[in-house]
Amino acid sequence: MPETLAGLGEFGLIARLEDLLGRQGRAAPGVVLGLGDDTAILRPQPGNELLVTCDTLVAGRHFLPGVIAPQELGRRAMAVNLSDIAAMGGQPLYALVSLGLQAQTLVAEVEQIYQGFLTELNPWGAAVVGGNITKTEGPVFIDVTLIGQIAAGRALRRAGGRAGDAILVTGHPGQAAAGLRQLRQTPQQADPELRRAYLTPTPRLAAGQAVALSGLANAMIDISDGLLGDLNHICEQSRAGALIEAARLPVSPALATAARAWGLDPLELVLGDSDDYELIITCAPERVPALTAAFGAVGDLALSRIGHLTPAGQGLRLLEANGQLRRLSPRGWDHFSS
Amino acid sequence: MPETLAGLGEFGLIARLEDLLGRQGRAAPGVVLGLGDDTAILRPQPGNELLVTCDTLVAGRHFLPGVIAPQELGRRAMAVNLSDIAAMGGQPLYALVSLGLQAQTLVAEVEQIYQGFLTELNPWGAAVVGGNITKTEGPVFIDVTLIGQIAAGRALRRAGGRAGDAILVTGHPGQAAAGLRQLRQTPQQADPELRRAYLTPTPRLAAGQAVALSGLANAMIDISDGLLGDLNHICEQSRAGALIEAARLPVSPALATAARAWGLDPLELVLGDSDDYELIITCAPERVPALTAAFGAVGDLALSRIGHLTPAGQGLRLLEANGQLRRLSPRGWDHFSS
Repeated sequence: MPETLAGLGEFGLIARLEDLLGRQGRAAPGVVLGLGDDTAILRPQPGNELLVTCDTLVAGRHFLPGVIAPQELGRRAMAVNLSDIAAMGGQPLYALVSLGLQAQTLVAEVEQIYQGFLTELNPWGAAVVGGNITKTEGPVFIDVTLIGQIAAGRALRRAGGRAGDAILVTGHPGQAAAGLRQLRQTPQQADPELRRAYLTPTPRLAAGQAVALSGLANAMIDISDGLLGDLNHICEQSRAGALIEAARLPVSPALATAARAWGLDPLELVLGDSDDYELIITCAPERVPALTAAFGAVGDLALSRIGHLTPAGQGLRLLEANGQLRRLSPRGWDHFSS
Repeated sequence: MPETLAGLGEFGLIARLEDLLGRQGRAAPGVVLGLGDDTAILRPQPGNELLVTCDTLVAGRHFLPGVIAPQELGRRAMAVNLSDIAAMGGQPLYALVSLGLQAQTLVAEVEQIYQGFLTELNPWGAAVVGGNITKTEGPVFIDVTLIGQIAAGRALRRAGGRAGDAILVTGHPGQAAAGLRQLRQTPQQADPELRRAYLTPTPRLAAGQAVALSGLANAMIDISDGLLGDLNHICEQSRAGALIEAARLPVSPALATAARAWGLDPLELVLGDSDDYELIITCAPERVPALTAAFGAVGDLALSRIGHLTPAGQGLRLLEANGQLRRLSPRGWDHFSS
């Protein structure tokens, strides 16, 4: 019979996970003391600031329990936090993980969740340094706190955008929304690229670090509320509006195919609610070539210039292919009115 | 009709809580950027190491939903984390809070939970710098990550104890277990001191800092698994045994009265499973007077010398009032055998 949490006990499970982390995890810089005491002890590296974020996944709300594999779940829980570090331009270092599990949760599945954490952390030299496990009668939850660092003063905030800034976006926003929709409808036939975009998004750490290090950008954010939703966060905090050009929005072939099958305009998916964990970046227009070069030096991720920030009060607007201007709602294309 | 989370919405609630923190919270040192961006930005103070811990409370498992008031719940959730910082000897600085709430949760109750956080954080100059709110259909949960600091090299670990060390304990362990038992049986008639010991334990921060700063102690831990359970953590990590002297164990009048009413030996409560968040400290016997003096300088908390560490292999033992030695189980008095 497969071993459950109730059978092994919480202390037994913790010992098993510490063993797994010891064998398969990386040693992050500055860890004076990791797991196993009242707190971890960490030595900050001089000249750096710390970046700290936390994010929770609850079963049925932030992931599809029957659809996502345990290792994918671990990857997803870590990736959404890594993305917040990426959105500041930082380097991830230390993760703390709180798990709420059910008595009948399988030990093997918990180990696979942890292997998913390491799949995301190891390439960046980051480590799990703390956490706890508790039982719950409710939906399983995973709460991750992630600590990173960045050279002092280099972090890119939401509030730094200025009217006139070019707006750039990485990758292909909307793919996660399309993937989620397919997984809800016909999970077995989901497009692999869309499925991956939703289940195990790739945090844009190398890109975010390159942008911050270049010193060329004014604002940055990651997309967890959709392209418009998160662009609106930049606009609110930067006291600016935004004009998006429909013709410049990146639409992947997989997204176009999926939209066609649903009879949707693909831009509805690109602009609307979707947690892609791509980055939105703003910078002075004359800096776009240099920023693009710095960005391109760390990988072949797509970077699209999709519009520009406008003076405050102009809100979010879309320049359509036919030359018409339309008002957009931060909640997405669904709610826009002309 | 009282406002609920479903009515106000998650973004609305977050705005309300940010406002509350701005008005009633303290500005912690080194906060470059607090709430409202992808991550907080924190500037570490040179010469210090960071202490990081996280702990989760789940309704029905770590607190009694009908019994604990929302503000007490906030205090408890923060106190159990502050206690981990205390157990290393550190100073708390930054809290991140993940809340899992139900749609029908009242906004006023969430605000009271946050006021409870501030009740515990403000006296130490610590601040909430991040967090998130999610809905759950299951039991409410609160996961807190706490970051503190300590002068580099000063943190007291579980592993530093040596055979021969005196074992000291703060306050009156067992009161939390007695309080929990009373609250489960007759919540209206619970003894106020025992009730408080369970619902809103006092993290021993000043005491822990004084002990670490003195440089006189070898090991320290806080009590969340009972006096024996946590002493056993020190023994395991320090490769030592422990001999406890029954006559030296501190028994508060409130605990003695409660034990009498239940027909229990009060030591059963003092030694057994109880989350008191008192501290267990070990130090070389010749240093006890100096340590006691350093400890006494920061308050009038009781400090009892209850026994000493022994060579490994001798396990946990109790010297009873009649001179007999008994073996103890780390699970508590209930399971001991002679």
